[in-house]
Amino acid sequence: MHKVAIVGASGYAGAELLRLCASHPDLDVVAASAERSAGKAVAAVHPHLGAAYPQLTFDHYSPDLFDGVDVTFLALPHGASQRLVPELLEHSKRVIDLAGDFRFHDDSVYETWYGQAHAQPDMLGDFVYGLPELFREDIAGATAVAVAGCYVTAASIALAPLVATGAVDGGGIVVDAASGVSGAGKNATAETAFATVDASFAAYGLVGHRHTPEMEMALTRHAGVPCQILFTPHLAPMSRGILATCYARTANEATTDEVLSALEDAYAAEPFVRIVEHPPATKATLGSNNVEITARVDPRTGWTIVIAALDNLVKGAAGQAIQCANIILGLPEQTGLPLTGVSP
Amino acid sequence: MHKVAIVGASGYAGAELLRLCASHPDLDVVAASAERSAGKAVAAVHPHLGAAYPQLTFDHYSPDLFDGVDVTFLALPHGASQRLVPELLEHSKRVIDLAGDFRFHDDSVYETWYGQAHAQPDMLGDFVYGLPELFREDIAGATAVAVAGCYVTAASIALAPLVATGAVDGGGIVVDAASGVSGAGKNATAETAFATVDASFAAYGLVGHRHTPEMEMALTRHAGVPCQILFTPHLAPMSRGILATCYARTANEATTDEVLSALEDAYAAEPFVRIVEHPPATKATLGSNNVEITARVDPRTGWTIVIAALDNLVKGAAGQAIQCANIILGLPEQTGLPLTGVSP
Amino acid sequence: MHKVAIVGASGYAGAELLRLCASHPDLDVVAASAERSAGKAVAAVHPHLGAAYPQLTFDHYSPDLFDGVDVTFLALPHGASQRLVPELLEHSKRVIDLAGDFRFHDDSVYETWYGQAHAQPDMLGDFVYGLPELFREDIAGATAVAVAGCYVTAASIALAPLVATGAVDGGGIVVDAASGVSGAGKNATAETAFATVDASFAAYGLVGHRHTPEMEMALTRHAGVPCQILFTPHLAPMSRGILATCYARTANEATTDEVLSALEDAYAAEPFVRIVEHPPATKATLGSNNVEITARVDPRTGWTIVIAALDNLVKGAAGQAIQCANIILGLPEQTGLPLTGVSP
Amino acid sequence: MHKVAIVGASGYAGAELLRLCASHPDLDVVAASAERSAGKAVAAVHPHLGAAYPQLTFDHYSPDLFDGVDVTFLALPHGASQRLVPELLEHSKRVIDLAGDFRFHDDSVYETWYGQAHAQPDMLGDFVYGLPELFREDIAGATAVAVAGCYVTAASIALAPLVATGAVDGGGIVVDAASGVSGAGKNATAETAFATVDASFAAYGLVGHRHTPEMEMALTRHAGVPCQILFTPHLAPMSRGILATCYARTANEATTDEVLSALEDAYAAEPFVRIVEHPPATKATLGSNNVEITARVDPRTGWTIVIAALDNLVKGAAGQAIQCANIILGLPEQTGLPLTGVSP
Repeated sequence: MHKVAIVGASGYAGAELLRLCASHPDLDVVAASAERSAGKAVAAVHPHLGAAYPQLTFDHYSPDLFDGVDVTFLALPHGASQRLVPELLEHSKRVIDLAGDFRFHDDSVYETWYGQAHAQPDMLGDFVYGLPELFREDIAGATAVAVAGCYVTAASIALAPLVATGAVDGGGIVVDAASGVSGAGKNATAETAFATVDASFAAYGLVGHRHTPEMEMALTRHAGVPCQILFTPHLAPMSRGILATCYARTANEATTDEVLSALEDAYAAEPFVRIVEHPPATKATLGSNNVEITARVDPRTGWTIVIAALDNLVKGAAGQAIQCANIILGLPEQTGLPLTGVSP
Repeated sequence: MHKVAIVGASGYAGAELLRLCASHPDLDVVAASAERSAGKAVAAVHPHLGAAYPQLTFDHYSPDLFDGVDVTFLALPHGASQRLVPELLEHSKRVIDLAGDFRFHDDSVYETWYGQAHAQPDMLGDFVYGLPELFREDIAGATAVAVAGCYVTAASIALAPLVATGAVDGGGIVVDAASGVSGAGKNATAETAFATVDASFAAYGLVGHRHTPEMEMALTRHAGVPCQILFTPHLAPMSRGILATCYARTANEATTDEVLSALEDAYAAEPFVRIVEHPPATKATLGSNNVEITARVDPRTGWTIVIAALDNLVKGAAGQAIQCANIILGLPEQTGLPLTGVSP
Repeated sequence: MHKVAIVGASGYAGAELLRLCASHPDLDVVAASAERSAGKAVAAVHPHLGAAYPQLTFDHYSPDLFDGVDVTFLALPHGASQRLVPELLEHSKRVIDLAGDFRFHDDSVYETWYGQAHAQPDMLGDFVYGLPELFREDIAGATAVAVAGCYVTAASIALAPLVATGAVDGGGIVVDAASGVSGAGKNATAETAFATVDASFAAYGLVGHRHTPEMEMALTRHAGVPCQILFTPHLAPMSRGILATCYARTANEATTDEVLSALEDAYAAEPFVRIVEHPPATKATLGSNNVEITARVDPRTGWTIVIAALDNLVKGAAGQAIQCANIILGLPEQTGLPLTGVSP
Repeated sequence: MHKVAIVGASGYAGAELLRLCASHPDLDVVAASAERSAGKAVAAVHPHLGAAYPQLTFDHYSPDLFDGVDVTFLALPHGASQRLVPELLEHSKRVIDLAGDFRFHDDSVYETWYGQAHAQPDMLGDFVYGLPELFREDIAGATAVAVAGCYVTAASIALAPLVATGAVDGGGIVVDAASGVSGAGKNATAETAFATVDASFAAYGLVGHRHTPEMEMALTRHAGVPCQILFTPHLAPMSRGILATCYARTANEATTDEVLSALEDAYAAEPFVRIVEHPPATKATLGSNNVEITARVDPRTGWTIVIAALDNLVKGAAGQAIQCANIILGLPEQTGLPLTGVSP
């Protein structure tokens, strides 16, 4: 058993880490911190985890909690982990950060899109980017991982093989995506109230969403050609799930069969990626670590559409973090990660 | 009082026509036909209308029902009204068709996208296109109206002023839209079951959706420049509402302020169109005949985004049909049409 | 036109008052106060009302706002109106309070169930109870009305005729009810977050809910026999709607036909009450001022079930308040109140 | 590995059996039949199971499929399994039926409540009742199990210890329950359409629901005193989950503490039953095999309320079936059964 710990375990991503660790045969949660819920039982804050964690209680963050921990997951709001990581790495052997703090190697990109200077620009190079399907080789020996963002995971896995093989252009891409409301975090706001979200669909973060440069970085690095993306996220009336509908200019007269083949070839060995014929529904991935993808070429307009569905809390957050942990710890990559969604 | 009648009154659009007529001061529903519900009370089929229609019963379709009727609304599945209209126009003074049957003047476009030959190609020229904000002058004296499709209404109202003023290009447009499930009609299918739709988001009709050529026709006719669109609809877990997120290439270095001004100028006198600052939510239009629109220019990528929200059963169907009826009958255009949504 | 005003107009009940007043031919909203939204446009806070109130802005509460107002509606959290009413009645001609503050004539009942002493015990006798179907004659000449609670309206209208005619006993009643989340108000909390409420059903307020004594009071007063009720509310994953499933011991060997007849007789002249054969769904009443009721007698167990559905924001709050205003102002009682629900 | 098979594997309960078997270490699905989906891949019918069952295809039912199978699960509509079981038991070593066909030992009870004569009255005695928490000792050596109904499981586990210890009376009980729509099965109907169920709450099956006599049988047998129940189910706008709110007359001046203690004592050793302080939400049990229960005594009215939440497809169907299979096969009872829900 490997010792793991969670910082920020009272939120949605924290809860999902706890859920997945509970059925993981090789991970043992030895500490879970949560400032506002410190002193409370996990069972009180996350009733759905009460039977699996009858004894565990949230602690205040304290570096000593993480002494000898093999992997510490940070599931904090953006901006918080960059203040904790330097100290934390003196106690925990490795850290896996689910926030946006360490995803860019260039702190000016961070500053431009996150609107604040980075507190630890010198550490950015110490982090590898946690998106195994595209950058697996980087992760194996890492001590610090910045897990890819949820929207980025969907769009990048969908588009990367097509840009890399030249089936589509890297420029002029549009990513139009919808997410369930858990992506906005657990803080109670008017925007995330049931009566606001129910029966409603709306865009948000027009033009300036922070996942834009991250998508461009991931695609550009993987494909080796400069990529530019306009990204528009939407909020759908559901708790979980991301669907990314990606539009790219078809190149080299690629056909639907060719783009589907390119996707199948790229992911034939991936346990969590399925290329499907029909447009995937987010519900098919609810609760699992899977990504489902389909694609079409429209010769009439010159566009190629690639659509990816995943669960934003699993493959888009906690599941991907554990997938990275499995790689780092030398475990089979799919260990403890659900292959089946929960539906209906 | 003007006499109106409804063919296909047991479906969602039919019910919405009944709902809106119930609070319309100048329309009197004298007949409502519905084949499978013939003989049943409206109150039994549409419980939410029981208090307003305590006596009305559905009839089988019969041309005599429509003798002397001022306006007959057809709310039938696509393909059905082209078989009824010739006979119906010998009884009813005017017809307003909510289906796709008579929206194109060129029957080859119909045949290409609907996959069947048109039964009444010679009548296509007799119908005007029912989208008052763009083609009001055509409607006034008409005896036959083909009401615009729900997605088309959203996308065309959003894009038309920008194409017409040259703020965006007419080619290379992407329309990515989401609809509530009532858009699929009332027929019970696995695809529209609660347990399928709930908590799920998915695309459908990839590349070949029938509203594509209708959007192109509406935009091209209104703006006078050829328009080409890739349209991708999605099903969102909600009963009503359409959000169309439209992407067009910015032209002439237009700015966000300029595109918002172009929209405001175009619709300043329109009672049902509101240009809003924040991304509109479908819920704000639920139950009303309103369209809410916002727009942004992204100089970095060269894209302009225009987003429109409306209620697919009101402005996207029954409300627009009554708006056309008001015009034809010489009533003030907003008579009887709700300006307020029902929220939450 | 009668001048009306709203105190607390930024909440759900306040918004619903604004919505209903917008289509009411005889009421003119001259002021709307809302502390936290003061200075903001109604259109910004309630986008669904933007087209109907393009100019109206929320004010801070100030007694002068209400000078010469015919009816002021108070849509405030429980406990607030008792502090405002004495002053308000020096400015506004009449007040209609939607909260629980003035529903009991006995301040000790208030203190027991609301857990605090009443600030204006001497004024309790000045208020009539606003539930027209049971206490219409009290309302006509009133200057102060305490509108009945949402759950109370559903359960009392369902049970009153049966207790009054002796078809069921007044003691040993169980009321098991479910409500949409708008009943909890607009304040953003963890309990009302989409991700909490969606896909979930739970009871709350076990044994001690404040609507219990109000139901007992309404039934006891109307039927003239002492009534005792155990009331258990539940939160259902929907925005609006109340369903009250009421269990009472059958008396005098009443049959299903007899209890349905007793209900029909009691409400034959009521515009907003419909006795229906099938179990009513809350959705059939969404947006309207209607109550739908059915009943069954189970001879095997000796229980009679009476079920009532209504929209908690309309018949359970704003609609009922306007119904009371219509009575007070001498208008036809159904003026401006929707008879049709919005479905689907 | 034990060989298992599923008859009726294309429905919701069948899918859930497949989901749970996929992560069960000791069960191997060797056959899955489904008449209307015969020849189709599991991945096509149940996309959420595609990654776990990439090869499995549905077969037509044929007795040979089940040769040598250790346990065959029947997940068929009520009435179908009684026609298959005699033949099936000549091939499969054991059967576990999830329908209502073999739950009563007295065929006249079946005939009264199911409205048809039983096809195999002589086999009723061969089946044990599959509700381990109350009748575990019956199950161990069984070759045929009739798994308890979903509502029955919730209400019986909630009430049994209190009736058995005399804390409440067995007569005069009211069970008021709500279920997600998956309880109605996968057949597409107007009643289960999204646009019908969404935003709505309604009762159904008034007075005569088939789970009534089953609840009475389970409670009476377990507690040894005659029990009589009025049961009213409701449909809530959610896919999964049952909440049973049970009302019984308090006996022997029991207090809230005493009834909670009685529940804790009864279930202290049960892995899947949790006694909780706050009213349980169905969402806390979504996807797990857990039951969460709370209780209150109301001295004022003499009622005791007991509330139980569970997932109708897991503890109310497939999970309980596998729990029974574990017992029969001599495996630890919780093997392969999820202890954590999926939330949000």
